[in-house]
Parts: sequence; structure tokens; C-alpha cells
Amino acid sequence: MEGRKVTGWAARDSSGILSPYSFNLRKPGPEDVLFKVLYCGVDHSDLHQIRNEIHSATYPLVPGHEVVGKVIEVGSEVKKLSVDEIVGVGCMVGSCGECLCCNTNKEQYCTEMVFTYNAIYKDGSFTQGGFSSAMVVHQNYVVSIPEKLAPEQAAPLLCAGVTAYSPLKQFIGSKKPMKAGILGLGGVGHLGVLIAKAMGHHVTVISSSDKKKEEALTHLGADCFLVSSNSAEMEKSRNSLDYILDTVPVKHPLQAYIPLLGVEGKIFVVGAVPEPLEFNASGLILGKKTISGSFIGSIQETQEILDFWVEKGLKTMIEVVKMEYVNQAFERMEKNDVRYRFVLDVAGSNDSVSKDVS
Amino acid sequence: MEGRKVTGWAARDSSGILSPYSFNLRKPGPEDVLFKVLYCGVDHSDLHQIRNEIHSATYPLVPGHEVVGKVIEVGSEVKKLSVDEIVGVGCMVGSCGECLCCNTNKEQYCTEMVFTYNAIYKDGSFTQGGFSSAMVVHQNYVVSIPEKLAPEQAAPLLCAGVTAYSPLKQFIGSKKPMKAGILGLGGVGHLGVLIAKAMGHHVTVISSSDKKKEEALTHLGADCFLVSSNSAEMEKSRNSLDYILDTVPVKHPLQAYIPLLGVEGKIFVVGAVPEPLEFNASGLILGKKTISGSFIGSIQETQEILDFWVEKGLKTMIEVVKMEYVNQAFERMEKNDVRYRFVLDVAGSNDSVSKDVS
Repeated sequence: MEGRKVTGWAARDSSGILSPYSFNLRKPGPEDVLFKVLYCGVDHSDLHQIRNEIHSATYPLVPGHEVVGKVIEVGSEVKKLSVDEIVGVGCMVGSCGECLCCNTNKEQYCTEMVFTYNAIYKDGSFTQGGFSSAMVVHQNYVVSIPEKLAPEQAAPLLCAGVTAYSPLKQFIGSKKPMKAGILGLGGVGHLGVLIAKAMGHHVTVISSSDKKKEEALTHLGADCFLVSSNSAEMEKSRNSLDYILDTVPVKHPLQAYIPLLGVEGKIFVVGAVPEPLEFNASGLILGKKTISGSFIGSIQETQEILDFWVEKGLKTMIEVVKMEYVNQAFERMEKNDVRYRFVLDVAGSNDSVSKDVS
Repeated sequence: MEGRKVTGWAARDSSGILSPYSFNLRKPGPEDVLFKVLYCGVDHSDLHQIRNEIHSATYPLVPGHEVVGKVIEVGSEVKKLSVDEIVGVGCMVGSCGECLCCNTNKEQYCTEMVFTYNAIYKDGSFTQGGFSSAMVVHQNYVVSIPEKLAPEQAAPLLCAGVTAYSPLKQFIGSKKPMKAGILGLGGVGHLGVLIAKAMGHHVTVISSSDKKKEEALTHLGADCFLVSSNSAEMEKSRNSLDYILDTVPVKHPLQAYIPLLGVEGKIFVVGAVPEPLEFNASGLILGKKTISGSFIGSIQETQEILDFWVEKGLKTMIEVVKMEYVNQAFERMEKNDVRYRFVLDVAGSNDSVSKDVS
């Protein structure tokens, strides 16, 4: 059954060009939350999706999975959220609710997990993302944005932030002084630096050139900067790190970074590189090293990173732009021309999106 | 300073052909143990070493790193071992003794670890392995063979056995019923099946053909046999395993096995494949899966697997052959024509090796 009519910005084909698109939300049920979208982060995977480069895109496709909004209406069974509250939605809007993953706060790994957009919801409706005037989402997949956190600041935490936080949270409370490496300084990487620093780790940013050295050390507060093409520096840094957060979403020589890890060191791969990645078995064996995948984070972890952000007084580094700018934002993001994440001011934009809901 | 004159079987060049070779052991110090070699296991890495395919071989080279012997003499500072005791030596005969690895029972990862053969010992002498009438080894790298364990049975445990045991011991006491996969059914793999079964795990042997099905199920007691070239079977087994022990020492499609793992599943790579291994990032990410390297085991773990073997009443499957047969044994091992490991009867062989020490 169709619900409220809204306007989103949708891709119509694999060119990935977005333009306004009118569609109907699903009708809210007793456990659903209807909210007006305020801000939405722009992520690399949005670009892949609208161009049909990952999964199979169904057009028109409204992307956006770092959504912050203000609650307009809640269903009769919704207890934890109320009208006017500021809320967030990340990469998922559903899961089976019954499997081991769902029952142990790992619902992102549920085989029936429903993506925020370009997916089929339980009722058969097609999900559309946060580049839209409003959304309807089941309460279990909606988090509360802390009052002390500006909504635009919160947006990137809902995907990029929790992606960095989920593998790193195991080190909270570690007695050992941890030495971290952050590989790639984009949306996830810059938050990784901030999170690792806030956890008290010694942070080395690893990059293919020294272009980002100044910003890594000065703006983000990293302790060291390592240029991977400098073999003398790389050699000197062998066995020096406890872990590496590898955020690079394109093909890269993983095996060049493994020697940087000490014994029992871990590399966390969070970028869905389309091509196979390579490693040397002996490099992993001689040192009991580990390569682990990690996928976004659970709903609980999403709430945790928001609270962590407030507790540690951290600041997301974003560029807020209007909805009409979205195609340019994608172009610039592709050229790595953003420090470090675009956030769309969906509600404040002077276009049709902002007029639907008031 | 040179010690006792002994006879070993050495490779003289990269042909890898072994023949009798007379050399002097190092002179035992106060913490050293001198023992007569009784049995020695034959491992794939011995073959790589004598042919100069890994590391850099210095000839003449006496291989052998699954050595069981009988103590002839102990230094004045040796307290834990005594004359006539049956002892074992695995892959290492030294390490720095001071680093974090050495101080936390992970000396196999010490950067100054000394291999049992083809290595330089602390005193500058060249180490020679267990295909020899006797050896001198520092007490810290010598384990006790339990009385209830036949010495020839113990030999393969000192490298192959502990290699399988070290990554698996984390599951001892796990409350969850574990589902194991064992990839490769050679020296390490067959012990992996026995260890996993003894730990109460449900064991699936994964192989490229069904040639070993009968022996896996009947002789080794595996629960299931999965042929990796059978895509229907592989598909049916997706997400079914908690871990895979990957013992394959040659290039293989690692990424084909990762889908068999469930959420948070782990694959342990223990075979030092010379070529890079590949995996799909998204296969690892969507399921929080892990690829870990593991290198033999510590001295403590070596002692543990020997005791575990007795406690569980396990039986190593070996073919005991005379020293003169060693070149044929290597040939047959290369063709995978052994169930599952050759053990050289060093002391009982009718050749010069057995005459040195009595």
C-alpha cells in the first residue's frame, strides 16, 4: 500500500546523473517511523550504485545511506522514539530479526538484511534512500542522534564512521599502547584517524604520496605519515604496527602493507575492492598476522559511535552542499576533491525536495 | 669449538639428492642436551630446502626437523631432562630469549629464531638437522616425549602436528559445537582432521577430487567430504563452517573457500605458498571473515600436542622407512604417494648413521 508522496533525486540509468523524482513512500506500520530528511552524507558506494557498478541497480534509484532526519510521525508500537526527535538511518532498514546475527547485535551480517536503497523491503516495496524529502523506516533500524551533536555532523558517522569504529572498538580498554595505521584518507579513513586518536592510539597515516601529509598531521592530528612508495621508510617501519585500517576502495597492493604489522598484527579491510586482493602466505604466517573483513557496523555500534563522538568531543570534517549540487559533488568526490565528505543539506535546499515536508 | 663427529645424510647441491656426510656437532655447553637420533619425520619443506627453493641453502645441508632422540649427555645446567630420556626437537633450536615473543611463549615468531638446520646458531656454527646420528640442542628447545607415546609416532607431531594444533587450540573448551573444514590431506591435514575430531568438532575434508574420500571418512573419521570442483556441493555448503585449516602448500584458489565460512569464520593458512594468494574483499567483508597465518607452534604448544595425543589416544598415520630410502621417500612424497608421512628410522638403519652413536 502506498504512503506519502515525496520527492527524491534519482538516477534514471547507468550514467548516474541524478534529477528530481517524485515517488510514494510505503505506508507506515505500527513499528515504523516517518521522518523528514535534514541531511544526507555522500559516499563512494552511492556512486557505484547509481552507475550500476555494484549489485544490480533498479532505476529510478534514489541513493543516500547516511540519513539524518526529524521525526514527523511514529507508529503505535514505537516506544523509543518520538515526534520532533532527531534520528539517523545508515545502510540498512531491515533484517530477519530472528537469526543468530540478528539476535547477537550483528544484524548487518543477516542474510536477509535489507539495504536502505535499491533493495526489496519485506512488504515487497522497493527501498529508496536519503536523497529524498522523507523516509519511513522500522524503529529497529533508526538510531537517536544525541542532542549535543549537530545533525550534519552526525550524517557521516552513520556509514563511514561506524565502518571505521566497528573493527576498532575491540581495542577500547586495551592496556597495551596501540600503534595504528590508517590506509587511505577519504571518508572512512579520516574518521578512522579521529577514532584511533580518541582511543589513545599512536596513529600513522599511510598514503601513496606525501600530498596529504600536512593535513594528516595538522588537521587530523595523526602522529606519523608514511609514504608507501618510499621503500626506505617502509623498511624502517616494518613490524611497527598493531593494526591497519585499510579503507582503500580500489585495487591496491595489500601485500606491501602486511610487513608493517608486528606479530599478531591485524589488517581490517573495509573497502569493497572489485578486483581480487593479493597477499603472500609466508608474510602472514611468519608473524601470525590476520586479514579481516568488516562490514559497516550493527545498529548498536551505530548508536555507540554517535555517543563516542559526543563523549570525545570530536568533529567530522565535512563540506555541506545543497541538493542541486549533488552531481557536482559526485564528480568532485571521484577526483578525491573533498575534505573529507560531502553532506547534502536536503531540507535546506531551494528545490522541490524541501517543499514536500514541512 | 667442534664437538662429536657424526654422520648425517646431506644434500650437496640443488639436485637435492642426499648421501652420507660426516661432520662435527658443536661442543655442548652447560645448557645443552646431546641426544642420539632415533626417528625423524620427512616434511615438504625439507624438499624445498634441499633443492634451494626456499631461503638460501648452504651445502652440504642435512635436513630434518621432526626429530626424536634419546638423551646421551646433558650439560650441568640442564635440570628438566636427563640421560636416557626420549626427547623431541622441532623446527627451531634457538631464539633471542628476551623479546616479547620469547617471553610470552611465542618464540617461533622471534626475529632471531634459529631454524633447526640451514641456519647460523648463536655461536656462529651452522645448524644441521635430524637426518643425522646425533644432535646438540639447547634445553629450551627440547621437549619431552611422553612415555606412553611411541617415538616414531611422536615425530610428525613436532612440526606437522603442532602446525595444525597451534591455530586450533583456541577452540578447546568452546561451548559452541564447531564445524571445521580441513583443506588438503597431507602431513599437516591428516593430523588436522584427527585433532579437530578429538576436540569434538564436526569435520569436513575439502579436496579437489574425490580420490581421498574413502580414506578421509573411513581411516581418519571425518564427517563429510566436499569436492571443491563440484559447484553444486560447494554452493550447498556455503556459510556452513566455523573455520578452515588450509594446509595446501601450493597455489590454490583461496577465494573459492571463503564462502564456505559462516559469519566471523576464520581460515588459517599454514602452507607457505610461494605465489601470492588471492581473495575477494567483499567476500571477507560481508561476513566479518578472517584469513590468518600461523607458523608451526611454540615450544609449549609442541609439548601440549604431545600430551594431547596421549590424552586422546590418537594415532599418527606414518610409513616408517630406513635412512637409505630417503631419496625415494622424497620422490614419493612429491607425488603425494604416502599415507600420510614418512618417518625415517634413523637409529635402526643399516648404514653409517647408526654406527656413530650407540
